[in-house]
Amino acid sequence: MGTGNPLRVGLFVFDEAEELDVVGPYDVLAWWAQHSDLRPQVLTFSADGAGVRCAKGLSLVPDTSADEVGPLHVLIYPGGHGTRALAADPEHLAWVRQMRATTPVLASVCTGALVFAAAGLLAGRPATTHWDAFDELAELDPSILVDTEARWVDDGDTVTSAGVSAGIDMALHLVDRLDSRDMARRVRRGIQYDPEPPV
Amino acid sequence: MGTGNPLRVGLFVFDEAEELDVVGPYDVLAWWAQHSDLRPQVLTFSADGAGVRCAKGLSLVPDTSADEVGPLHVLIYPGGHGTRALAADPEHLAWVRQMRATTPVLASVCTGALVFAAAGLLAGRPATTHWDAFDELAELDPSILVDTEARWVDDGDTVTSAGVSAGIDMALHLVDRLDSRDMARRVRRGIQYDPEPPV
Repeated sequence: MGTGNPLRVGLFVFDEAEELDVVGPYDVLAWWAQHSDLRPQVLTFSADGAGVRCAKGLSLVPDTSADEVGPLHVLIYPGGHGTRALAADPEHLAWVRQMRATTPVLASVCTGALVFAAAGLLAGRPATTHWDAFDELAELDPSILVDTEARWVDDGDTVTSAGVSAGIDMALHLVDRLDSRDMARRVRRGIQYDPEPPV
Repeated sequence: MGTGNPLRVGLFVFDEAEELDVVGPYDVLAWWAQHSDLRPQVLTFSADGAGVRCAKGLSLVPDTSADEVGPLHVLIYPGGHGTRALAADPEHLAWVRQMRATTPVLASVCTGALVFAAAGLLAGRPATTHWDAFDELAELDPSILVDTEARWVDDGDTVTSAGVSAGIDMALHLVDRLDSRDMARRVRRGIQYDPEPPV
């Protein structure tokens, strides 16, 4: 379609974000961006635009900063150990609530949901997170309807996924939802996502 | 066991490496490194130690350079568009052959196999690559026994995987092989790798 107002997807990165939480959805969405007639834009950004050191030590340099990223249709919020500090940072939570007010879809991977919960975004709503963080999620906000079985939960303007690799499945679902089933299948085939866990 | 001679795994990164080819195996292996009694070390390195811009635009800063990475037990070689230039670079292929001579296991993800093929490492051996590169692989070396069905091919000192996300499965297999089935299952559970492709 190539309109002048493309779908813009921003992937927020931070110190101690889990590497695969970031890059699983990134690769799915960037593959989509390269092949879809909708010409979506996929950007990475950190709070201040500086590089981040992820949870297992990998260093990423994002495209831009939170101030510069501009209006988004979709915000992807990864998990990782860094979410604990962010979930306890009132300034950051105010920013998350501001993003909520201006962004049609907020989507967390893994323990990114803890930050959404701390910001009050999940009150009374179904959501999921990494299996090892179900209790943390419920403690942050007992009104959350924690889904302990789902690979991801799509609650309209808010989508949450289970742990780490579940971000790949959620991102494919987002392509299906935002573009088409056919496009999501093309992305799946492009990244040859026919998983065969060997153990 | 904590011996003084830990298993050292090096993940080679380069411009136009496919993001998920790098980070899928990285997350699996780094999770293993953080939890195994074998205390493996997992390092990323580029040819000259400088940062790289991956195939879809993500910028990574590696831990070190090829000169500084030191002896490895396992070299992980990702795929991506950048492999075409590397497969045509005689100096780089000489380096790959030198790594072959000194590294017990060389493992490619996706089109990383094209570089192994160009270096002559796959002559007369079973191997796989991204489904869209089967012909390229056979053209580089018609003696390769291209396995068009396998998620990965373990041929002892050489392991090759299918496209992009197959690197996750191959890396879990490497943990199973180098450590234990139980550890590989723990890593799988840690990254919650219970894939449910939605399309």
